[in-house]
Amino acid sequence: MQDSILTGDRPTGALHLGHFIGSLKQRVALQEQYPQTVLIADMQALTDNGTDLKKASQNIVEVMADYLAVGIDPTKTTICQQSALPALAELTMFYANLVSVSRLERNPTVKAEIASKQFGDSIPAGFLTYPISQAADITAFKATLVPVGDDQLPMLEQTNEIVRKVNRLANKQILVECKPLLSNISRLPSVDGKNKMSKSLGNTIMLGSDEDSIRKAVKSMYTDPNHLRVADPGQVEGNVVFTYLDAFYPDQSYVNELKEHYKAGGLGDTKIKGILEECLQELIRPIREERQKLIADPQYLISVLKAGTEKARKVTDEVAVAVKNMYGLML
Amino acid sequence: MQDSILTGDRPTGALHLGHFIGSLKQRVALQEQYPQTVLIADMQALTDNGTDLKKASQNIVEVMADYLAVGIDPTKTTICQQSALPALAELTMFYANLVSVSRLERNPTVKAEIASKQFGDSIPAGFLTYPISQAADITAFKATLVPVGDDQLPMLEQTNEIVRKVNRLANKQILVECKPLLSNISRLPSVDGKNKMSKSLGNTIMLGSDEDSIRKAVKSMYTDPNHLRVADPGQVEGNVVFTYLDAFYPDQSYVNELKEHYKAGGLGDTKIKGILEECLQELIRPIREERQKLIADPQYLISVLKAGTEKARKVTDEVAVAVKNMYGLML
Repeated sequence: MQDSILTGDRPTGALHLGHFIGSLKQRVALQEQYPQTVLIADMQALTDNGTDLKKASQNIVEVMADYLAVGIDPTKTTICQQSALPALAELTMFYANLVSVSRLERNPTVKAEIASKQFGDSIPAGFLTYPISQAADITAFKATLVPVGDDQLPMLEQTNEIVRKVNRLANKQILVECKPLLSNISRLPSVDGKNKMSKSLGNTIMLGSDEDSIRKAVKSMYTDPNHLRVADPGQVEGNVVFTYLDAFYPDQSYVNELKEHYKAGGLGDTKIKGILEECLQELIRPIREERQKLIADPQYLISVLKAGTEKARKVTDEVAVAVKNMYGLML
Repeated sequence: MQDSILTGDRPTGALHLGHFIGSLKQRVALQEQYPQTVLIADMQALTDNGTDLKKASQNIVEVMADYLAVGIDPTKTTICQQSALPALAELTMFYANLVSVSRLERNPTVKAEIASKQFGDSIPAGFLTYPISQAADITAFKATLVPVGDDQLPMLEQTNEIVRKVNRLANKQILVECKPLLSNISRLPSVDGKNKMSKSLGNTIMLGSDEDSIRKAVKSMYTDPNHLRVADPGQVEGNVVFTYLDAFYPDQSYVNELKEHYKAGGLGDTKIKGILEECLQELIRPIREERQKLIADPQYLISVLKAGTEKARKVTDEVAVAVKNMYGLML
């Protein structure tokens, strides 16, 4: 059987360079090789934003514009909306009976996220159980490859536990196990080098950033605080400018030369920031321009999403029916 | 606004006299006064039977036969299948983001059930969260009256908490609060007076019982173990025969006379069991006969359930759309 890919985003904001290098670029490449589904996980976005009514919805069109602007091609990739696919909720309900609360509480990804989110005594039930919902997503699309970072591996383990349990119960293969498609790109640091990238912290470069914002962001980038004079030797590790050059500059051997020069001394921050800025301006300009055209016509973006969702409905409904049949519930 | 009723059963077995006196009889009366929906809660039945593939499905037709045999009239009462109404799963997902895990863990009904079910360290996530699913059911049908026993009141509190939270978020009344319709009938004891009634323990009288089973069950009924000779004074409290006479005998003043006679001495167990048996034979005979006819045509029963489910789809989908609209997700 040919591999197929499921990936997606919680629509909690427009996308930035971290998304571009961490997933979007890969998706544009993968759509040439595999059937690929990109799920806009609006239900999952609400698991820790249940009282923020506009959080998910206001960003769906933004994310759609980002997708199409970077080159995700809806004729090759199915882009769909999670909340418009009831089979995903139905599968979540069935799977929830096969996963214990303590198993969820042991999930390292969820544990780390709960710790970082400061829910206190009020962990939303939907948040604790979202690995089950994610298993529903992955299995509903019969995805065999899921692009993830290391930190997401426990989610795929949970999914495959459910897959094996269901197939054993059914005594046949109803669901398909998935494998991680690990990316070798580590998480892009924020401009200040300190935090996770976040639009609200203003420490990132959005895919729709204008020239001026890009210039300012690169200027403010964290380098080597001990690199005071151009002649001084500078440090490359933890220097955000070099991390970005590694990630975005097309010619890696030139970046390596720059690194040697910087370490030896005689290469100023202004110089390397200028090189990075030019590279980022060139990268983002066509994306921004395409994005502006797209976002001017939200109805078109919605129509693309709806068409993808209709396509997705067929396969997700099929899997829900298979699980209902296992329980003899299709009367 | 006119009140409307939601009630239902987990289809984990055919129904017995406890169901008849505890809910079925009331439903037959209520359908004359209110719009009434009876939900066959097959999804909820699986929350503690996730690995028992036939548990829910094999009992759906049995329960349908029980319903119609006792006089629940599908032209007056909408009978529908939970798993065939995806809006219920969708609403469960939305509400799960508004209820904390610790709130679920504090639910007295769920706590008591978890203690009795000996899940050990393996409480299914679907079981812990079923109060949310029940809130989805109640609100999806815009039910204002829910017939419950005392022990189920915390479920309605949980539902109304969700209702108030959603309406506050939406800043308008999307969902409707419900009130309990408390029954004054206490839970019917098992024939042996010891346990909960259960078909598998053989301590109950099913609505489809044949004459011989009824006779045997009444004969084996727990009375007063110290009432050895007819002339002895006997105890009425905890005497299952009198509990059943109270519940089923049409003439309560005659039952009171019997009680006085029994307490004074001179009334034998054989005599009172004879009176009870005759009463139960008369009660069950027409139900059994009707039930036999109905169960012989499972396709008819399924068609009635499907028609009710289609009717239910409209109202439940409406409520799911209202909640999606609140989050701006209906693109």
